[in-house]
Amino acid sequence: MSTSNIPYKIYLSENEIPKAWYNLRADMKNKPAPLLNPGTGQPLTAEEMSGIFCEELVAQELDNDTAFIEIPEDIRSFYKMYRPSPLVRAYCLEEKLGTPAKIYYKFEGNNTSGSHKLNSAVAQAYYAKKQGLKGVTTETGAGQWGTALSMACSYFGLDCRVYMVKCSYEQKPFRREVMRTYGAQVTPSPSDTTEVGRKILAEHPGTTGSLGCAISEAVEVAVSNPGYRYVLGSVLNQVLLHQSVIGLETKTALDKYGIKPDMIIGCAGGGSNLGGLIAPFMGEKLRGEADYQIIAVEPASCPSFTRGVFAYDFCDTGMICPLAKMYTLGSGFIPSPSHAGGLRFHGMSTVLSQLYHDGLMEARAVEQTAVFEAAEQFARVEGILPAPESSHAIRVAIDEALKCKETGEAKTIVFGLTGTGYFDLYAYQQYNDGTMTDYIPTDEDLARGIAALPKVPGVE
Amino acid sequence: MSTSNIPYKIYLSENEIPKAWYNLRADMKNKPAPLLNPGTGQPLTAEEMSGIFCEELVAQELDNDTAFIEIPEDIRSFYKMYRPSPLVRAYCLEEKLGTPAKIYYKFEGNNTSGSHKLNSAVAQAYYAKKQGLKGVTTETGAGQWGTALSMACSYFGLDCRVYMVKCSYEQKPFRREVMRTYGAQVTPSPSDTTEVGRKILAEHPGTTGSLGCAISEAVEVAVSNPGYRYVLGSVLNQVLLHQSVIGLETKTALDKYGIKPDMIIGCAGGGSNLGGLIAPFMGEKLRGEADYQIIAVEPASCPSFTRGVFAYDFCDTGMICPLAKMYTLGSGFIPSPSHAGGLRFHGMSTVLSQLYHDGLMEARAVEQTAVFEAAEQFARVEGILPAPESSHAIRVAIDEALKCKETGEAKTIVFGLTGTGYFDLYAYQQYNDGTMTDYIPTDEDLARGIAALPKVPGVE
Repeated sequence: MSTSNIPYKIYLSENEIPKAWYNLRADMKNKPAPLLNPGTGQPLTAEEMSGIFCEELVAQELDNDTAFIEIPEDIRSFYKMYRPSPLVRAYCLEEKLGTPAKIYYKFEGNNTSGSHKLNSAVAQAYYAKKQGLKGVTTETGAGQWGTALSMACSYFGLDCRVYMVKCSYEQKPFRREVMRTYGAQVTPSPSDTTEVGRKILAEHPGTTGSLGCAISEAVEVAVSNPGYRYVLGSVLNQVLLHQSVIGLETKTALDKYGIKPDMIIGCAGGGSNLGGLIAPFMGEKLRGEADYQIIAVEPASCPSFTRGVFAYDFCDTGMICPLAKMYTLGSGFIPSPSHAGGLRFHGMSTVLSQLYHDGLMEARAVEQTAVFEAAEQFARVEGILPAPESSHAIRVAIDEALKCKETGEAKTIVFGLTGTGYFDLYAYQQYNDGTMTDYIPTDEDLARGIAALPKVPGVE
Repeated sequence: MSTSNIPYKIYLSENEIPKAWYNLRADMKNKPAPLLNPGTGQPLTAEEMSGIFCEELVAQELDNDTAFIEIPEDIRSFYKMYRPSPLVRAYCLEEKLGTPAKIYYKFEGNNTSGSHKLNSAVAQAYYAKKQGLKGVTTETGAGQWGTALSMACSYFGLDCRVYMVKCSYEQKPFRREVMRTYGAQVTPSPSDTTEVGRKILAEHPGTTGSLGCAISEAVEVAVSNPGYRYVLGSVLNQVLLHQSVIGLETKTALDKYGIKPDMIIGCAGGGSNLGGLIAPFMGEKLRGEADYQIIAVEPASCPSFTRGVFAYDFCDTGMICPLAKMYTLGSGFIPSPSHAGGLRFHGMSTVLSQLYHDGLMEARAVEQTAVFEAAEQFARVEGILPAPESSHAIRVAIDEALKCKETGEAKTIVFGLTGTGYFDLYAYQQYNDGTMTDYIPTDEDLARGIAALPKVPGVE
């Protein structure tokens, strides 16, 4: 089918796995705003952070200057189990669409966790082990992050305690079983194992939980158990740093064949995948060496970029975490239960928020039936069953390829295919049955969340 | 972790995908016995077969002489979407076991169908399309084959009707949804859509179905609808032929690094994966060019090689299919409901049966709790969640590596990792909960099945 000399899948060799992560912040003129202590309104210090996070990760979180941070050899060894990940030329999709566009996707789902989350999970587990910790705690919603962390902790021999949002724990028993197979202790949240969990259960006996509540429980367990720290799978600067392996490999593969993308598309929830994918390209853009159209795709049901405000807000609904300056819908915002899959975070990475604010990237919101339509179209010709999250990027990639069909332009489109949808088949079933619905929050819905943004001492 | 120059994953380039399948039968001195018409006891003719199977597949089924059969370009294009599959050096498993053995596995799970079944599904769908057919029918049990066929039919624009064993249809709704996502029509079997289905439902109103019954329904639909043929995912010679891509790629990758395996291990249900994996190695053995220890691994609960007899038997429980000479437990044999996963076929590929009968390979039966123990051990260090079927091979690979640890021998072990276990997490849950049980049929159980073997006109 291909008449080109570009293979379907561009595989790099193991020695082309990046030796250093790229810290995009080093090239940003306008640095992301620092996290603030909600009590004092002052930037969070390394000391304040180190009670919650591993020391080395705190250093990475605060480092806005070092462009390249070496990837420890043990992490590279782990990466070799599933990296380099393939960059795939979507010949079959192009043919199906009849587009002159050239479409590539970087596929991060070829590991058991099923997503890119493993790239940061292994790094965070490694630093926890190096610090001599006994274990880590975290929360998980859709389950990709919890699965990835379980795998990483199993590899390094760390205890792993996952607080899984109760409705997800019950609706996705198989996600839970994967984590247990990797030796993790999985607790439905809210639970009676923490003070905050007991409080919430007493106040709302029938609650099915929320990500914010699970974060609160995981943080409580980390700070109250010696030898434990809390880890998070997105949003943070350190996580975007680790995820830069996605973009670095993508760039190496494209350069190898002399391919220059016109646009780069990724889905955005907390921003870790997108931030990682675009890192080296955005770096070139920031340094004035090249230009790319960069598009963040978010669910219309949780539209932080396209309908949120750029302000300081809590990272959790429980309002115990630090304040981050980001595009946010308000920390009390919870997407409609009809929203399938992840990308449910009310805010956004501070790095991406700053870049978006500075006009260096754009954002689009898409509705979920259109997303699943794209997912199915993609699956049928490209043979990969995509995660709902990833399918947001597929939707916009297809839209752009169809625009090229109209204009006759042969643009080169690169998008991030973050993972597989094996644990999302309930949502596929709804789509197949025609019972899936769309939900777009009203202006009034959003106004309520934004009106509740915290007042920060000393910040307007 | 690796101090060797062998990478973790040996990826071949796309132009190293085999250009021809290797037909092991051409090198067999003792050819596999022909399929017989159960009414006449005479070998089935091409004409008799072509009412059920596609013409070109009939030719492949009957061809015992042509060593290499060219892979059509359209099939190779499809293969490029997920092949070459990686040959992985299990450094982490070796370290965990503390063995001097060198362990490699050929991983066939990196495609959405999640297993090697796609290698034959695409070939069978291609020939059906080429013949101008409207569609194909098949049965599926655990669901790997049905998923693979749905993907292949979606790609070639063929109608795909899958009869799925009712208990599996109900217990694995997500398998069903993947098939629907690829556009297949999935019917729980027995159903009221066929004569045989209605008959069985009338006789056994509460039945949850069986593979044999689903085969009968699929065959009935194929022969009674113009433009349809029946396709099968294992057992047949043609399927082993298509699966030879596994072994050919494995051999190319090993040769590239100068690696000579001492033993090759694969799980065996109907035999398609094992037959494909060992094909070129067995070819060398048959031609006296090299020697390898070849081990088939089967469930102790369905031990056709290790406890069956070598005789003509029906391929289906409904006794409407041709007779095949094979190691069999009797066509009425159904493994205990406590048996998880596939590898449930009562018989075995006639090719492998002949090779086993001639002493060219050995067989081992393993119990399922030991299999899941190996699966979990593998998953935790190698980062792939294996299918229960594949884990039979892992069990014996680990056993052999541990023997090497005792003797100090640095044997090179290659095993087939046929697929992933994303849809088998109910079984993993049973293992994690400690509620999984083992089942070994008694001698009396087996004697009953074997006593019921058919009398073939003119055959002793």
